Amino acid sequence: MLTKLKNDLFIRACKKLPVERTPVWMMRQAGRFLPEYKAIREKADFLTLCKTPELASEVTIQPVDIIGVDAAIIFSDILVIPEAMGMNLELIESKGPVFEKPIRSEADFYELKNIEPFTDLKYVLDAVSLTKKELNNRVPLIGFSGSPWTLLTYMVEGGSSKNFLNVKSMIYNNPKLAHIILDKLALTVAGYLSAKIEAGADAVQIFDTWGGVLSQKDFREFSLNYIAKIIANIKRDNQPVIVFAKGVHHSLKEIVKAGADVVGVDWTMELNKARSEIGDKAALQGNMDPAMLFADYEVMKDEVKRILNSFGYGSGHIFNLGHGILPTTDPDKAKAFVNYVKEESVKYHKDLKRNLVS
Amino acid sequence: MLTKLKNDLFIRACKKLPVERTPVWMMRQAGRFLPEYKAIREKADFLTLCKTPELASEVTIQPVDIIGVDAAIIFSDILVIPEAMGMNLELIESKGPVFEKPIRSEADFYELKNIEPFTDLKYVLDAVSLTKKELNNRVPLIGFSGSPWTLLTYMVEGGSSKNFLNVKSMIYNNPKLAHIILDKLALTVAGYLSAKIEAGADAVQIFDTWGGVLSQKDFREFSLNYIAKIIANIKRDNQPVIVFAKGVHHSLKEIVKAGADVVGVDWTMELNKARSEIGDKAALQGNMDPAMLFADYEVMKDEVKRILNSFGYGSGHIFNLGHGILPTTDPDKAKAFVNYVKEESVKYHKDLKRNLVS
Repeated sequence: MLTKLKNDLFIRACKKLPVERTPVWMMRQAGRFLPEYKAIREKADFLTLCKTPELASEVTIQPVDIIGVDAAIIFSDILVIPEAMGMNLELIESKGPVFEKPIRSEADFYELKNIEPFTDLKYVLDAVSLTKKELNNRVPLIGFSGSPWTLLTYMVEGGSSKNFLNVKSMIYNNPKLAHIILDKLALTVAGYLSAKIEAGADAVQIFDTWGGVLSQKDFREFSLNYIAKIIANIKRDNQPVIVFAKGVHHSLKEIVKAGADVVGVDWTMELNKARSEIGDKAALQGNMDPAMLFADYEVMKDEVKRILNSFGYGSGHIFNLGHGILPTTDPDKAKAFVNYVKEESVKYHKDLKRNLVS
Repeated sequence: MLTKLKNDLFIRACKKLPVERTPVWMMRQAGRFLPEYKAIREKADFLTLCKTPELASEVTIQPVDIIGVDAAIIFSDILVIPEAMGMNLELIESKGPVFEKPIRSEADFYELKNIEPFTDLKYVLDAVSLTKKELNNRVPLIGFSGSPWTLLTYMVEGGSSKNFLNVKSMIYNNPKLAHIILDKLALTVAGYLSAKIEAGADAVQIFDTWGGVLSQKDFREFSLNYIAKIIANIKRDNQPVIVFAKGVHHSLKEIVKAGADVVGVDWTMELNKARSEIGDKAALQGNMDPAMLFADYEVMKDEVKRILNSFGYGSGHIFNLGHGILPTTDPDKAKAFVNYVKEESVKYHKDLKRNLVS
C-alpha cells in the first residue's frame, strides 16, 4: 500500500523512516475553519454531514486541496460510537454535544446495544472508502476514534463538562462499572478502527481529549489501559497508530509501552524533552499552540522554527498543532503555516545518514 | 510573630521545619461551599462581601471554626486589583467575572490609574487586620493575589476565556505592550502583598491559575518572570511566599528559582516526583483532586494516604487540594478529609531526626 501513495511522507515519518522534509497536517483540519466547509454546513447540519459519505468525503479532502496538508483525516465525530450504541445525540455547535439520557447506572449501560461497524457505522466506512478513492493516493487517509475514557466522559456527563464530577464519581465510587463500560468501549473502538483500516485508512489516531483531567494513577488505570487494549486488538498490516492524549506530560513513555507508533503532544511539552524521554521507540506529532495561528506571520514562523529545532535532526516528527485548529482561524494563515513547515524543515533531513541513525 | 501563633504547623511546614503532623487547608475554602457562607451571600452580593471587612472576616474564619483547617485565607477576589485600577467589574457567579471595557491597546492601559493599597484597597487590608484580630492567633492568616499573567488574561479577555485568543494575540503580536502591563502589575501586586503582610498576613500566596495555557517558553517569559519580580519586591520579615501555578509541570524548579518558599502543585503531578525535582529548596503544597471530595469516604481516605505516602517522611508538605474546592462539595466530606489528613499524617513526622535531615 505504501508504494501506491504519491506523498507518503506522513507514513514514513510515523515509522521513523527517512523523509525529505517534515510532514504536516492539522488536527480538526476537516471542518471548522474553511469557508468552503462552512458553505457546505449551510446546507446540512453537523450530523447529516457526518452521515452523508459524499459530503463527509468532500470536506475531508478540502484541506488537502486548499491548504496542502500531507495527510487527510476523515471528517466525523468521536460521538458517533455512543450514538450508534443507542444514545440519542444532539450536536449543537454553540453548546457542544448533548446526550439526551446519560449513562449513570449499570442498567443504563445494559440498554446500549452491541455494534457491528459495517452495519451500524456503515456511513463512516463508506465515507472512508469513497475518500480513499477520491484522494487517488495523493496523501494518506487517517481514521480516528475517541479513547474509551474520553467517550465515557461524554456518555456519563451527557455532554461537555467543566469538573467531570459525574464520571469521576463513577470511577471513584463504582470503578467496577466504569471498567465494564471502558472494556466494552475498548473492544468496540478496536473493531471500529479495524473496520476503518479495512475500508482504506492508512493510519489511525486515538484522541484522548480528557485524559489530562485525571491524576497519573487514574489516567493509567482508566484511560491508558484501554488504549493499550485497543491497540492490541486492531486488525492491521502495518498502519501506524497515533495516540494523542492532551495534558498527560507524566505518561509519554507509558503511551509508547501501550503500543503507540506515534505520540501526539500538546504545546505545554517541549519536543526535545519528549523525544529524549521516549527515545527511538516512537515518533512524535505536534505541537504548536493553535492560538499561534492568530500571531503575525513572522511570529508564527519563528515558532515553527523553534519547534522544528526543538525536535532536531532526523525523521520521526509529524508537524501538527498541539490541539484542534480553532474555528476562527484565517485560512491564509493556516496555509502559510503549512507552507513554512514544508520549506523550513528540509534542512533537518538533508543528511540522510544522520537521519537513519538518529 | 511565629511564637505567638497557637497553631503554627502551616508556617513551620512552609519553612520545612519539623512538625508533629502535616498541616492542611483548602484553596477557596472561604466562600463557595459552606452553608454558613451561602447564608451570608443571601444578604450581600459577592463584591459587597469583598468590600465589607466584617463580612469578609466572618467568612474567612468560618472554615477554621467549622472545618478545622490549619490556616485561614482572607476572603477576597484576585480581580480587586484591576477594579481598583479603574476597570469596571461585574462578578456574576454563573457567568464568571466580566470587565465592561477590556484592555486591548496601549491607550486603554494608560487610562488605568496607579494604586496605593492602603488607600485604594483599604477594605482588603481592613479585612486582614480585623481577621488577624478575630482569629486571635489560633491559626496563621494567608493573603493572596493573582499573578500578573493571570490578571492580564482577565483584563484583556474581559472575563473568563476558553482559548485566550485576545491575550495570546497580545503577547505574540505586541509583546512590548504586554511586558509594560505585566511589569506594572508585578509592582502593583508586590505593593499589595507587602501591604497585606503589614496588615497582619502571616504568609502570602500567588495564584497563577492560567499559567498552564502557555508553552514552557511563554510561561517563563510572560508569567514566571513577573512572579519573580513580585517576590523580589515584597517587603516581609520571614513570611513565606507560596506560588501556585496550575498545569506548569515543566517549571517546578524554575518556580523555586523565582523565589517561592512553597510550590503549589495540581493533581496531575506526583508529589514524590515534584519533591525529588525541587530537592531541599522549597516546600510543596497540594494536591488532591477537588473531585475526590465527591468520592465515598473510604476512597477519599485511600487517596489521602496515597498522597501522604507519595510525599513521604519529613516536613515540607502542606496538604491541600490541587485546585479550589468545588461549590457543591459536602461540608461533612470536607471535614472528614481535613480530619483524616491530621490523623493519618502523624506517622510521617514521628522520627524527628529523620525529619530534620530529609
